[in-house]
Amino acid sequence: MPGMSEALKAALTDKSAGVAEMLQHLLPEVAETESRLFDAMRYSTMNGGKRLRPFLVLTTAEMFHVAPSSALRAAAAVEMIHCYSLVHDDLPAMDNDDLRRGKPTCHKQFDEATAILAGDGLLTRAFEVLAHPATHSDPAVRSQLVLDLAQAAGPHGMVGGQMVDMLAERDEAVRAGLDVAAITRMHQMKTGRMIAFSCMAGATLGKAPAQLRQALQAYAHDLGLCFQIVDDLLDVEGSADEMGKTIGKDQAAGKITFVSLLGLERARDQARLLADQAVQHLKPFDAEADLLRDVAAYVLDRRS
Amino acid sequence: MPGMSEALKAALTDKSAGVAEMLQHLLPEVAETESRLFDAMRYSTMNGGKRLRPFLVLTTAEMFHVAPSSALRAAAAVEMIHCYSLVHDDLPAMDNDDLRRGKPTCHKQFDEATAILAGDGLLTRAFEVLAHPATHSDPAVRSQLVLDLAQAAGPHGMVGGQMVDMLAERDEAVRAGLDVAAITRMHQMKTGRMIAFSCMAGATLGKAPAQLRQALQAYAHDLGLCFQIVDDLLDVEGSADEMGKTIGKDQAAGKITFVSLLGLERARDQARLLADQAVQHLKPFDAEADLLRDVAAYVLDRRS
Repeated sequence: MPGMSEALKAALTDKSAGVAEMLQHLLPEVAETESRLFDAMRYSTMNGGKRLRPFLVLTTAEMFHVAPSSALRAAAAVEMIHCYSLVHDDLPAMDNDDLRRGKPTCHKQFDEATAILAGDGLLTRAFEVLAHPATHSDPAVRSQLVLDLAQAAGPHGMVGGQMVDMLAERDEAVRAGLDVAAITRMHQMKTGRMIAFSCMAGATLGKAPAQLRQALQAYAHDLGLCFQIVDDLLDVEGSADEMGKTIGKDQAAGKITFVSLLGLERARDQARLLADQAVQHLKPFDAEADLLRDVAAYVLDRRS
Repeated sequence: MPGMSEALKAALTDKSAGVAEMLQHLLPEVAETESRLFDAMRYSTMNGGKRLRPFLVLTTAEMFHVAPSSALRAAAAVEMIHCYSLVHDDLPAMDNDDLRRGKPTCHKQFDEATAILAGDGLLTRAFEVLAHPATHSDPAVRSQLVLDLAQAAGPHGMVGGQMVDMLAERDEAVRAGLDVAAITRMHQMKTGRMIAFSCMAGATLGKAPAQLRQALQAYAHDLGLCFQIVDDLLDVEGSADEMGKTIGKDQAAGKITFVSLLGLERARDQARLLADQAVQHLKPFDAEADLLRDVAAYVLDRRS
């Protein structure tokens, strides 16, 4: 894949396999009547995504010498939250998408009611996984992870960001008010906070000192924003083939994006600046943060 | 209200007011664009329900001398989970209800997308509230509460029960397989586990000894089942006026209930037996459990 170092490619493949295995373990098939629910939860998490968030959890956890089983549970919890948000986002009342990564969305493969319940089930299960003693022997670490994840995913985080995004799509007055500050805030809520949680979970599990936590927080902030700007750029510049989805969709829908607000060139400059800044924040770390540096380069240069 | 002692009536009114105040505090109005989400969350929790679950949390918490602020936070978290499940249950793809307690359901008052997000927001916020240090100074207690609530509300609990219930409604083969054991299991998952959590949360907050925990668990089990059988009886015997909803709805829909399986008389006997048993389980407690005894009598004798 363009923009991806060999080391990053190998690490992504390796870690993604580990996360898939942990998800299989945490979301088993069941024989009872409610098997349809579990099937839908499994279907929605085994979707061939890049698994960027779990990758960030696992990579930072390694930097703080966290036990792999702990890190994998936290990574799986993050992925469950990410996948639940996609399942609910795809529903007819929300984005009404029939396909995700070329496969039928959950409500198309099953039905709407099952998709609603599968999303609810994944969201709830994520907290169960984090709070379980198998995730960490120290209950203070477990309850911190639950608190942080709930804040990142809840009404002041991801769900709040989705609300703003939806209103911007449907309400002319809200759309008119979306300037660079407002759209930055929206993306910070909608995707930034979950990316930040993913970068911080390993530090929490490894009881990292405050200075290193702050460095990772700053890295995550810039990485998340860079990720979003590049998303907007790819919608204009990417080829449909590489993206695996219709491009120019945002523009056609009159959507406010970083590109519509800043123009192509300034958006590109801004993305580059953020990727550079993200890497700068990693100065307190030696080679152990090289994968995070590669991630920043990849997020900037990716073609899909 | 019929079946309700004066002491219970006063305690329900008092505790319900405390829970409403805590919910107001935990779900504030916000000024930002996402205010619509918070409005929908507030609307869905301030619905004039009986608040039976929070009442059980607060009453058992008092038995173990838990600080009121701790108990109220746990009670509010339980109510958020209960209300989120109603919001999602009422959606067109699920039960498609326009009214709840005589008021428009969340998706009618707002819109479907907002209702989906409000449910997600309440579910997530409940875990945030429990994991927050303000709920208890001991993180082991907080993470135990999160774990227990997630198990009660998740795919092996409430969400799993909702899946079975939905399948029983839509799938002839599933309906045909619903005998007394299967319907008991379904209700145990769908409502029983949350009632059990509500009875146990106070004991967890108060670090109650195992023997008393077991007594409460047994009480909660019988209370929850009694509650459901009486629900089924009221659908047949209740007056529409007292119930505030259409009665005979289950029968008309060909729904499998305890009444359709056992007949009126045996269902009534079974409910009485369970209420008696529930009270028996409270033997280890003196007068401090009197409100729980009154609850059992009320659940059996209520007319709505």
